[in-house]
Amino acid sequence: MIIVMTKDATQEDVKHVIDRLEEDGWKAEVSHGTERAVIGVIGTGLPPEYEQHFEAMPGVESATRISKPYKLASRDWKPTDTVIDVNGIKVGGGDFVVMAGPCSVEGHDHLMTTAQAVADHGARMLRGGAYKPRTSPYSFQGMGEEGLQLLAEARERTGLPVITEVMEPGDVDLVEKYTDIFQIGTRNMQNFPLLRRVGQSQKAVMLKRGMSATIEEWLMASEYILSEGNKNVMLCERGIRTFETMLRNTLDLSAIAMARRLTHLPIIADPSHGTGKWYLVKPMAMAAAAMGADGIIVEVHPDPDHAWSDGPQALTPANFGDMMRSLEAIVTATGRKMATVAAAV
Amino acid sequence: MIIVMTKDATQEDVKHVIDRLEEDGWKAEVSHGTERAVIGVIGTGLPPEYEQHFEAMPGVESATRISKPYKLASRDWKPTDTVIDVNGIKVGGGDFVVMAGPCSVEGHDHLMTTAQAVADHGARMLRGGAYKPRTSPYSFQGMGEEGLQLLAEARERTGLPVITEVMEPGDVDLVEKYTDIFQIGTRNMQNFPLLRRVGQSQKAVMLKRGMSATIEEWLMASEYILSEGNKNVMLCERGIRTFETMLRNTLDLSAIAMARRLTHLPIIADPSHGTGKWYLVKPMAMAAAAMGADGIIVEVHPDPDHAWSDGPQALTPANFGDMMRSLEAIVTATGRKMATVAAAV
Amino acid sequence: MIIVMTKDATQEDVKHVIDRLEEDGWKAEVSHGTERAVIGVIGTGLPPEYEQHFEAMPGVESATRISKPYKLASRDWKPTDTVIDVNGIKVGGGDFVVMAGPCSVEGHDHLMTTAQAVADHGARMLRGGAYKPRTSPYSFQGMGEEGLQLLAEARERTGLPVITEVMEPGDVDLVEKYTDIFQIGTRNMQNFPLLRRVGQSQKAVMLKRGMSATIEEWLMASEYILSEGNKNVMLCERGIRTFETMLRNTLDLSAIAMARRLTHLPIIADPSHGTGKWYLVKPMAMAAAAMGADGIIVEVHPDPDHAWSDGPQALTPANFGDMMRSLEAIVTATGRKMATVAAAV
Amino acid sequence: MIIVMTKDATQEDVKHVIDRLEEDGWKAEVSHGTERAVIGVIGTGLPPEYEQHFEAMPGVESATRISKPYKLASRDWKPTDTVIDVNGIKVGGGDFVVMAGPCSVEGHDHLMTTAQAVADHGARMLRGGAYKPRTSPYSFQGMGEEGLQLLAEARERTGLPVITEVMEPGDVDLVEKYTDIFQIGTRNMQNFPLLRRVGQSQKAVMLKRGMSATIEEWLMASEYILSEGNKNVMLCERGIRTFETMLRNTLDLSAIAMARRLTHLPIIADPSHGTGKWYLVKPMAMAAAAMGADGIIVEVHPDPDHAWSDGPQALTPANFGDMMRSLEAIVTATGRKMATVAAAV
Repeated sequence: MIIVMTKDATQEDVKHVIDRLEEDGWKAEVSHGTERAVIGVIGTGLPPEYEQHFEAMPGVESATRISKPYKLASRDWKPTDTVIDVNGIKVGGGDFVVMAGPCSVEGHDHLMTTAQAVADHGARMLRGGAYKPRTSPYSFQGMGEEGLQLLAEARERTGLPVITEVMEPGDVDLVEKYTDIFQIGTRNMQNFPLLRRVGQSQKAVMLKRGMSATIEEWLMASEYILSEGNKNVMLCERGIRTFETMLRNTLDLSAIAMARRLTHLPIIADPSHGTGKWYLVKPMAMAAAAMGADGIIVEVHPDPDHAWSDGPQALTPANFGDMMRSLEAIVTATGRKMATVAAAV
Repeated sequence: MIIVMTKDATQEDVKHVIDRLEEDGWKAEVSHGTERAVIGVIGTGLPPEYEQHFEAMPGVESATRISKPYKLASRDWKPTDTVIDVNGIKVGGGDFVVMAGPCSVEGHDHLMTTAQAVADHGARMLRGGAYKPRTSPYSFQGMGEEGLQLLAEARERTGLPVITEVMEPGDVDLVEKYTDIFQIGTRNMQNFPLLRRVGQSQKAVMLKRGMSATIEEWLMASEYILSEGNKNVMLCERGIRTFETMLRNTLDLSAIAMARRLTHLPIIADPSHGTGKWYLVKPMAMAAAAMGADGIIVEVHPDPDHAWSDGPQALTPANFGDMMRSLEAIVTATGRKMATVAAAV
Repeated sequence: MIIVMTKDATQEDVKHVIDRLEEDGWKAEVSHGTERAVIGVIGTGLPPEYEQHFEAMPGVESATRISKPYKLASRDWKPTDTVIDVNGIKVGGGDFVVMAGPCSVEGHDHLMTTAQAVADHGARMLRGGAYKPRTSPYSFQGMGEEGLQLLAEARERTGLPVITEVMEPGDVDLVEKYTDIFQIGTRNMQNFPLLRRVGQSQKAVMLKRGMSATIEEWLMASEYILSEGNKNVMLCERGIRTFETMLRNTLDLSAIAMARRLTHLPIIADPSHGTGKWYLVKPMAMAAAAMGADGIIVEVHPDPDHAWSDGPQALTPANFGDMMRSLEAIVTATGRKMATVAAAV
Repeated sequence: MIIVMTKDATQEDVKHVIDRLEEDGWKAEVSHGTERAVIGVIGTGLPPEYEQHFEAMPGVESATRISKPYKLASRDWKPTDTVIDVNGIKVGGGDFVVMAGPCSVEGHDHLMTTAQAVADHGARMLRGGAYKPRTSPYSFQGMGEEGLQLLAEARERTGLPVITEVMEPGDVDLVEKYTDIFQIGTRNMQNFPLLRRVGQSQKAVMLKRGMSATIEEWLMASEYILSEGNKNVMLCERGIRTFETMLRNTLDLSAIAMARRLTHLPIIADPSHGTGKWYLVKPMAMAAAAMGADGIIVEVHPDPDHAWSDGPQALTPANFGDMMRSLEAIVTATGRKMATVAAAV
């Protein structure tokens, strides 16, 4: 930690800071520059937000941590990429994984048709929401357990592992019975009780970035899951909120590139929520594949204008197939390949 | 709802839209302009997000609702200001209410000292966190039930009603035993299961605006609480996330002025989180009083540089007293008065 | 400047940094912590953006300036408030100055009527645009020199000094003949040739904050004017761009409170552009007065729905008068007074 | 235009709106719904911002244009892609064009070395700044005309056309003597006098997106250039300003995908400014190529840690060469090819 004093800080102010550091057991080093004093703290393991104590003290201009506030998520802690095995599909191992399915599970035939269509076109995971976080209390809120049962049936039929959202700690046990991956939605990225609870499961977790979360906050949120013992965490960039109104969100691929350097966790892109427009999904999926994302998650619906949620961003099965062909060319050009099911599974 | 067709939409496309509307039981009116067709839908009670179905249809450029998506929170529904009575203190009735106390409850003496100090200077509610949403899993997470018990004891001693945060549906019963107002924090503004759960209580709820929530999303979130039957909802603007890095958040007082026109619910400002700097709390509190907020909630700590959380934004009791004197002058200048306890309580 | 090395930086990397510093004539101090090395640079007068050289070097995690990058605008340089005298009206001296008038000058009668109305209600400066920066090339672009002549005539009639926008360096000479204060609009905050050019004038300059400019960038922009020799610079906060769509901009009063600590320059609020809605101008003007702004600039139009620009945010003269009465009460409550004309002028 | 009345608008209010429309020569159609009236305006050619007149009128809830406010830039006006020929290099014709060079021209040898290096690795245009918009007045401001002369010499030696920034209308004649493409920087996207002035030239213009400009504002800014008669306009996305602090800007590739649908103008990505980190340039350049940008513009410096500006985002020639190889694979995978010089030139 580096504590910079103000230009007019007194000797007393400097002493006050040093005394506080020593009271807490840290060793301080002071540099007296021509304009102001700077105090460095030697040692590792400073408590989180410890710098805030000093920012409130007289004569202190700023206090800045040097070491990263997250640990288990960082490449300093684990330099090699984490690979998550979900029923034989590897996420993060270099191959490109496509997860697809409807926004909401809407019924038996709807789900089975969609699941078969995405499987036929090469998807490796089936997405579908049974519990839906909706802006309005009057919107369709999901089919609940019946939706989960349908997802499990679709897995039986297609062989695709299932990813579905869980919204509250009290639902984790139920959802765990049916899903292969827990999805934590953007609105719940900092729902800390929920993060802790899925951290106690051994099923994989996809943590979506909060719509206004910094990269550091996103990694800190993953730390909540990791620190409970669940190592199978993948991140998902799904678009951030900016001033632009023409798009639902701004898909921030540079955040994936940056996070890739900082963390060993796999990172998935969501071009459906990231743009909100079905006609932008394909180009942004191709961009994500080219820049090194570990996969994408996209919404597919057999009849988007009758979708119960998020119709404007859903691909038809035909459009999905078209995208998959273009994606494969890009993935190959980067020296990688589309994920396949491990033979032995 | 107004559906605008693209310039090159076909007759078929227009028919497709109208058929869909009629299939759903709505009456459509088509205007054929020189450039494009526009379809208006007559009637009230369109399902939420209904416009999305049309945005996904061929030949549709945009589909826009005219009626507001929230109802119980709107002034159209209830034109007169809601006044919430909390143990004899009225929030929203014209008087200006000051809520104050530490960020976190840190212990018995700490809380009793702080509570007495803010009471002595004219605060009318006591704030204090027993469950703390922290960015890092390694930060202090609050004292839990012990903290709630201390808050209840401080209420006994000072007569100040208590406001404290609840973070998950499973904690609502416990927190309800001790608190007078549930606080829903910024990270939980769209934690819908939690909103529903406090909506089933009859204790008042303060709903903080999400740090990147639009005014409409904020009102929609209040609708989740109201629609469960709890009418005692107050809103709190606590700063939004912008590009500015010098301040923790950007306190958006214009959102209070705008929301005031749209909703009958009381609205409180939080200049502590809204700025993140103790030295900006007083001027922004004065601004909030001048522009018509129903009150403020601020953080006070007897020794900010030893605070267990949010020290840089905490006022000392002396600074709090100084602010209260300036506030009273402003409140008086606007023809209002500082809240007092109702005689009969 | 503090240069923090990465955890795996080599001795060679550290030496490389130190050599570069010494090559440039600076003295470096190295602290070897348990995890990483930190290099401090002693001395003042580092070139601007000097830290960038180091951020590009191997083994460097970050390089951070300690001293502020602006100088003439800072309170370190000039601790006392700057007071600007504009034809006997003092801006920044503690009194509250109201500047008012139409968005655009639209014609002789229109301007004279509006000018007289705002003067009658206590405005102390007349605003009005003769050169208008418009998003569309097909919008009304201002009356040009004819508009300037009308402003000068209105000054004759009412005694109010004039503030008007200048958009390009080549127009400065012409505008200077007529105006008392140059306004630099939000889109030109970083039009550096224009800033330099008005810096060579001795007429006062109002520098509006860029709609996405940080506080530091705003002060740096003022430094361009100050460093050319013009000391009569006032700042104006006019709303920033955020994700909120219901308001034209988000008036950031906390930026005024923060800038007040950093700079000695007077600071004005613009609640008209800051909200974009006439009905929010009064509450936000009152907020600005309460939190310590040196004045406001607002748009007034005798017939807003026929205004040639910005009608939705213009006050009628009657609404302006109403606002002025409320403002005076707030200003008085803060121990200040509304600006008056110096007797001797 | 669609004008939506408030729920409590009177018959008088509706009449007032219709009268105003008819006074201006427009035909109004009124639909009386169960809740409120909606007024549609039939006809094309509404003046820009005309809707604002109505938003200020009593009883009006909102007034929304249907037709786009830009014309010459739109695909409605010109459905086919614009192809700009710059000394035989085609921008926008399907091939992928790489523009590269130093941020600033720093001297003779520096520029000739860099220009030769980027030419050898397949760049097709040479970038380099002679006039530099810098946040601080104390930073290096560019070599001016001497820098332009060096750029012209580098063009002679390498055959690469030159792109360089112009910052004020008064410099356009001088810069035009040397450059092949005028660059309008992000801070000048709404410097309307400058846009008009380059619109009167026949040399091509690259218009960078303002760092907080919406897609619509960006297209409107291009309209300023187009409407003066210069059809050779290309757009450049260079990153927008968001809340994220770890990156200099957020490169918004989805804006390119969206703008592609709206306009026929070529669109270039700038991953150097878009990220601010040299190590993110390659992945984001690959993303831009995959999603259909017409090219990229990147910064290259032989010795980034001695660069006079923007060192942290500059590629070394070796890194540039590495990126070019990866780019070619991606471009090929999308069925396009890297731009070559037309044989006949």
